[in-house]
Amino acid sequence: MHFSSVIHILGLLLMFLAIAMLLPIAFSFYYGDGDYQALLISAGITLVFGFVTYKVTRFAQDLRPKEGFAIVTFGWLSFSLFGCLPFLLSGAIPSFTDAFFETMSGFTTTGASILSDIEELPHGILFWRSLTHWIGGMGIIVLSLAILPFLGIGGMQLFKAEVPGPVADKLTPRITETAKILWGVYVLISAAEVVLLWLGGMDLFESLCHTFGTMATGGFSTRNASIGSYGSAYIDYVVIFFMILAGTNFALHYRFIKGDFRAYFRSQEFLFFLSIIGIAAVIIGIDTFSHHYKDVPLTLQKTLFQVVALLTTTGYGTADYEQWSFTSQFVLFVLMFLGGCAGSTGGGMKIMRIHLLVKFVFSEITRLLHPHAVKPVRIGPNAIPRDVVSNVLGFFITFMLLFILGVLVMSALGLDMATSFGAVAATINNIGPGLGGVGPTDNYAGIPLVGKWVLAFLMLVGRLEVFTVIILFSPSYWRK
Amino acid sequence: MHFSSVIHILGLLLMFLAIAMLLPIAFSFYYGDGDYQALLISAGITLVFGFVTYKVTRFAQDLRPKEGFAIVTFGWLSFSLFGCLPFLLSGAIPSFTDAFFETMSGFTTTGASILSDIEELPHGILFWRSLTHWIGGMGIIVLSLAILPFLGIGGMQLFKAEVPGPVADKLTPRITETAKILWGVYVLISAAEVVLLWLGGMDLFESLCHTFGTMATGGFSTRNASIGSYGSAYIDYVVIFFMILAGTNFALHYRFIKGDFRAYFRSQEFLFFLSIIGIAAVIIGIDTFSHHYKDVPLTLQKTLFQVVALLTTTGYGTADYEQWSFTSQFVLFVLMFLGGCAGSTGGGMKIMRIHLLVKFVFSEITRLLHPHAVKPVRIGPNAIPRDVVSNVLGFFITFMLLFILGVLVMSALGLDMATSFGAVAATINNIGPGLGGVGPTDNYAGIPLVGKWVLAFLMLVGRLEVFTVIILFSPSYWRK
Repeated sequence: MHFSSVIHILGLLLMFLAIAMLLPIAFSFYYGDGDYQALLISAGITLVFGFVTYKVTRFAQDLRPKEGFAIVTFGWLSFSLFGCLPFLLSGAIPSFTDAFFETMSGFTTTGASILSDIEELPHGILFWRSLTHWIGGMGIIVLSLAILPFLGIGGMQLFKAEVPGPVADKLTPRITETAKILWGVYVLISAAEVVLLWLGGMDLFESLCHTFGTMATGGFSTRNASIGSYGSAYIDYVVIFFMILAGTNFALHYRFIKGDFRAYFRSQEFLFFLSIIGIAAVIIGIDTFSHHYKDVPLTLQKTLFQVVALLTTTGYGTADYEQWSFTSQFVLFVLMFLGGCAGSTGGGMKIMRIHLLVKFVFSEITRLLHPHAVKPVRIGPNAIPRDVVSNVLGFFITFMLLFILGVLVMSALGLDMATSFGAVAATINNIGPGLGGVGPTDNYAGIPLVGKWVLAFLMLVGRLEVFTVIILFSPSYWRK
Repeated sequence: MHFSSVIHILGLLLMFLAIAMLLPIAFSFYYGDGDYQALLISAGITLVFGFVTYKVTRFAQDLRPKEGFAIVTFGWLSFSLFGCLPFLLSGAIPSFTDAFFETMSGFTTTGASILSDIEELPHGILFWRSLTHWIGGMGIIVLSLAILPFLGIGGMQLFKAEVPGPVADKLTPRITETAKILWGVYVLISAAEVVLLWLGGMDLFESLCHTFGTMATGGFSTRNASIGSYGSAYIDYVVIFFMILAGTNFALHYRFIKGDFRAYFRSQEFLFFLSIIGIAAVIIGIDTFSHHYKDVPLTLQKTLFQVVALLTTTGYGTADYEQWSFTSQFVLFVLMFLGGCAGSTGGGMKIMRIHLLVKFVFSEITRLLHPHAVKPVRIGPNAIPRDVVSNVLGFFITFMLLFILGVLVMSALGLDMATSFGAVAATINNIGPGLGGVGPTDNYAGIPLVGKWVLAFLMLVGRLEVFTVIILFSPSYWRK
């Protein structure tokens, strides 16, 4: 393990973070909320710390997967540690646990909040809170499309077989190039959403903040009642559309922009993603139409919004789905685990993995009938290598084990069934709102201290595709 | 597909069933409840039907796995269809759905009941009800130790690597021999339990019925308050001991009887099984001691009973665990899915499979660190073949999918969260009592009609190791 290289890169990343902390200051001055000092001091501390660690260490050639795991995990951790400074120093969130929870929730694009009254926060701090989402989303795109394939972790290897996009085979030489292309796409789509939200009546501040929340599939809002507070069908549909884009593989967007207009519809995963949205919306729509809205357009708007918000793991809300039937809530609960497409900013287990699990079951049934026929698992025309299948299966089991352990801990802290299930599902899948005491109209303020740390850990584990973090707990990782 | 062979064997099995129906008549006469007519007529109908189908068909040599799947699935189905005749004809359970549900619950050794007042049933019928468990248990032992390995289904292949017991490699030649040995062990242990329960104050009728329920890990009782109605620590511990034996691989018992006294402690699965009991009892014991019993012996007795009853999927009760904390209930809920050892009468996913899943995750983590080192998954000193690992993984995913679909259907029928989760978990794992509306003090009478059929299907699927049934839904199964 080249500790020096790892710390060197972390120092560099912190310097970027410090620069990002300066951006909200424009809104501090514009709105005159007086929160610029906290942001400035936070940026200063982060910059100095980053600069010093960068300078006292040096970069050795040839990063191996081992260093990769550490950089990713400690990268997100250190962003959350330094990123919570503005909340602490401004007094917006006085408790360190709460501030860390909120920042981890931001950078992991979860959107779970301990804030009871969001609207009382100064604008600079609110902007920083939303910006952590957007930065986290940038990190995730590069992570899933450039870094994880290099580390040998499943999601994108599957995708590589399907769409040969701008996917790096090695970390060092091509990562910068890949990152630039993908960030270009990310910025372009974000800009489009800002304009469309602004046309729908939001001011620039709100357009930006909600775009950050959408594009990162995060879910932080500037309003207590989330997107629902605007009561606008236009805004709802704009956000639905961009949540779908954010939950789609960014390599497909890249191909689309390059002129390959049918890229989306050649992707099995994307079609599966759309089908899931359709099926879930019909099941839930039947319930919400007959028991709540009794009006087709309104049912469609409210149902589609919640289905897309939870499937893409954004977590924005326009309806209190805890008022819906248990069937609808259970469907939403299952959607939470499916998540976005591989290579998107969405969390959860990823559509591609679920698709592969289903295919794997069918191939096992075939094998029972024809024990001597060796057939690989296929997605579309592509045979998926056995190692990739193994990796996805290992991911699924580990995910389920973590979910069970998480619920066990939450229950031991005294939370009830719905809250325990909801809080763990909403954090490990990076959604935000869950069920029960952490449902769409509640927040995480009431979770016991230990619970907040456990949930923050689950956000990190879920966001970094589980193994990136878990592997650091393996003794053989630390051995020479 | 040799339909003729399949029907031929089913006919033979039905003739055995008819003979079994005559046994309870002894108790009908002894107690003078007048239910002997229903039993006699049922036996007659079953015998005639079995004899005719046996005679008009003939057995072709060489059964293939294809026929094996059909015989097993349709065997359990036809036993449940004919086995419910005594309930219907005696008027004990007037509804066909209810009678079928109760009988399927018996033969699958589930123990889920639609009866609100068990004690009002005539003795012959009650005896028949418990006997269905014991017959089901016999079937399961032969199924898991002799038939399933032949069909290529996972659980026992794993065990074969661990303990080379009396396991048949081919169905036809050695199945009778294997069955005889295992049934000998089953009868011997059953006899021991009958004597010990009788010494504890039960009469012969109750000793037999509760032995049937224990040895099959079924859970039907002759009392409304289950084992708890005796209020005897001695009886509780006898039942605990025999539930553990019933949840253990019968090949180990066979080796023990043959003089290999350390057979149990060489089995990784058995040690894992005991560890799970220990860990769960400690976690739950802390809660039940501090919030309920405040007395060490009573806490131990009540906690251990419930842990063993649910882990082995017996489902007997001595305490209303729904009064315990959500942590305790959640631990019990997880235990339900683990189940007994492979080759036992226990249901659930089986300890061996869980053990393998955990090992698989570790091997995947190792592979991420050393991508080029090809290491098989090991249990003890044995490398598990990749095909067997695949099969277990496929089993796990299918089991989870069925659980989710089951909960979805139950929720659509209007059941609440706890009841939906509890009913599906308690049937697919072949336990009996669940949570909420089907908790330990309730029964399945209130489940809607469609729900009863779905749950009966889940009992069958869970009991027959999922694939045995699921494969029949594959179009390629029915193709030439």
